[in-house]
Amino acid sequence: MMTIKLPKGFLAGGIHCGLKKKRKDLSLFYSEAKCKCAALFTTNVVKAAPILLAIKKLKKNVYVRAVLVNSGNANCMTGKRGIADASRMIKSTASALRIPADLVIVSSTGVIGRVMNMKPVLSGIKQLARDISPEGLLHASEGILTTDRFCKVSARTFSVGGKKIRMVGVAKGAGMIEPNMATMLCYIMTDANISFGALKKALKESNGRSFNSITVDGDMSTNDTVMLLANGEAGNELIGNAGGGLKVFQKNLDGVTLDLAKMIVRDGEGASKLVEITVRGAGTEAEARKAARAIADSLLTKCAVCGGDPNWGRVASSVGSSGIRFDPDNMSITLDGVVFYRKGKPVPGVKNKAGSVFKGKNVSIDVNLFRGKAKACMYTCDISKKYISINSFYTT
Amino acid sequence: MMTIKLPKGFLAGGIHCGLKKKRKDLSLFYSEAKCKCAALFTTNVVKAAPILLAIKKLKKNVYVRAVLVNSGNANCMTGKRGIADASRMIKSTASALRIPADLVIVSSTGVIGRVMNMKPVLSGIKQLARDISPEGLLHASEGILTTDRFCKVSARTFSVGGKKIRMVGVAKGAGMIEPNMATMLCYIMTDANISFGALKKALKESNGRSFNSITVDGDMSTNDTVMLLANGEAGNELIGNAGGGLKVFQKNLDGVTLDLAKMIVRDGEGASKLVEITVRGAGTEAEARKAARAIADSLLTKCAVCGGDPNWGRVASSVGSSGIRFDPDNMSITLDGVVFYRKGKPVPGVKNKAGSVFKGKNVSIDVNLFRGKAKACMYTCDISKKYISINSFYTT
Repeated sequence: MMTIKLPKGFLAGGIHCGLKKKRKDLSLFYSEAKCKCAALFTTNVVKAAPILLAIKKLKKNVYVRAVLVNSGNANCMTGKRGIADASRMIKSTASALRIPADLVIVSSTGVIGRVMNMKPVLSGIKQLARDISPEGLLHASEGILTTDRFCKVSARTFSVGGKKIRMVGVAKGAGMIEPNMATMLCYIMTDANISFGALKKALKESNGRSFNSITVDGDMSTNDTVMLLANGEAGNELIGNAGGGLKVFQKNLDGVTLDLAKMIVRDGEGASKLVEITVRGAGTEAEARKAARAIADSLLTKCAVCGGDPNWGRVASSVGSSGIRFDPDNMSITLDGVVFYRKGKPVPGVKNKAGSVFKGKNVSIDVNLFRGKAKACMYTCDISKKYISINSFYTT
Repeated sequence: MMTIKLPKGFLAGGIHCGLKKKRKDLSLFYSEAKCKCAALFTTNVVKAAPILLAIKKLKKNVYVRAVLVNSGNANCMTGKRGIADASRMIKSTASALRIPADLVIVSSTGVIGRVMNMKPVLSGIKQLARDISPEGLLHASEGILTTDRFCKVSARTFSVGGKKIRMVGVAKGAGMIEPNMATMLCYIMTDANISFGALKKALKESNGRSFNSITVDGDMSTNDTVMLLANGEAGNELIGNAGGGLKVFQKNLDGVTLDLAKMIVRDGEGASKLVEITVRGAGTEAEARKAARAIADSLLTKCAVCGGDPNWGRVASSVGSSGIRFDPDNMSITLDGVVFYRKGKPVPGVKNKAGSVFKGKNVSIDVNLFRGKAKACMYTCDISKKYISINSFYTT
């Protein structure tokens, strides 16, 4: 198995503890030094027990040394019992690692509304605490998956003030992905020395351009988490709220998050194509985003992409129902570089070129509204029969 | 073939003119006397050419005698040419029926962005004008269909002031159905004598409780039309803006529209189940509707219903992301009469009853928020692999 180097001072691991039948279902991310932590969580009113605990803990600037993640059970809508179970997982991890419990965070993903099966989790934690290593990232990236078809890992190495900095991220996606961070988990580790303020600012910015710009099926989950841990072990001069250091850090964080976001889309349940949607010429960025989002959320458009069918009328219809203002007689629609509709009429003879559209693994939908200069991008996938198969029998 | 009696003075017919390969694609509804007309149209910014003409005409209180409907081509995003073609269809219908053109309305449904093939339409109009009859309703109900699996017809006979009144409606739905009247056509004819004001008021009310309370796939179309024609031939005393006559009329119109709305959902592309979603105990009706709508729009919930999988966690997650406020620890979720979640925890032992859930043709999802007294109902269907097949290859 290939290994991916973790940043300095980080260890990780992933095992099968028994929440799922066969696949790995418990992962641990650990730092030898205290990490500053920035995190973003789901905006769903229904929040899983571990999310409730983590939000409470991370209200202030706090340090973290370990993040435990289980898959196979979301520990959500499990009432007081769920909170007690999540707390017990924190305590058990802290004790196995011999660190204080307030340096531990837990995350869960999986089925909603089932009480945690604690026995395998507790014995799994003990095993994991022994198993973690600087080479364990890929195992950890496996243990957080649910219906995902592949592990999602992205890494960057860059320099700030002559010091080499490493940044590594893993993510989990598949179904239920949409902006506002629906069912996805992402953990990014770096050895950069960076202030709390800069860390939080950078994560928020990157998140807007990556995880909040993707959609698979429009559902928003109860367990979404994006977390960034920085342990300062690279020994660089502190990256503050401004300056060249933050710029470089931001650029690399943008790279890691967009890599992971695109992998999540590409792994959309049953998906075969990555669709990049651009709406340009909008009055405001918010309008461009609204229109791009409407196209990305359209089931009919996703089906058309799946079937390699250049049904640009559906694209127009989605923009028309998105709630933004525009003039249908002064817009253009381009699919995979072929202009189908321009300024009030279908392009003559375009049918001959239609055969080449939506055939590749990467396809594009480009809409120009000719109203202003704002633009926005969204990423989504097509929808296929496999999506239905996977989601029809998820709990049973 | 069974026939359904039209209201007094109405004739109808439907033929295959050649826009589609084999199925009927041109229908005509006609009244010997002038009809008062009330209509509601799509709110999509992108509107088909015939919709633009009809909206303009119906701004004032106008009379109508004929409605021509073609399927197979939406005549949408076809620019000036589309407007010219729709106008030509109006003139041609008027001339074939020997009535003034301002008494004719046209509607279109089908693929967006293709110029109308006028030759078969124009010769079809001539044939139809000869073919219409008091027994032609079922033919007409066929000619408006696209991917529908069955004709949608509903009728009522009732009395106002001792006079017998007949009301008959036909509709077209399948894919792209959602509230705000997405891709559906509905034409209701009655021989009631009723004022313009009462007619419009009644249609608006019924529409909110029927066509605006259904969703199949969340997409909103460019051609939606709900139209109500009243020719007064029943000879009843005029039904005005209030009073017992309007009440009876409203009740029967509610019946016809809800019948048709449910048929549209049941015929959702590839659907096998009708799902009735009730959200009760909400603070306001708007909140209840928002939550019910979120459940109905959730692809994951639709998949779960399709697979007979009582995944109530998805229902909770949808309500949680709907944007309304509620306390997840004080809600209950009931599927097909089985309570799965009550006041902060999963109901113990419920797994034994789960096998019976979502197995019938009619299934229900019931959520109580325990916040207030408001409630709302939404109707939707499940989603199956067939949906993907139908919509992946629609234009090609």
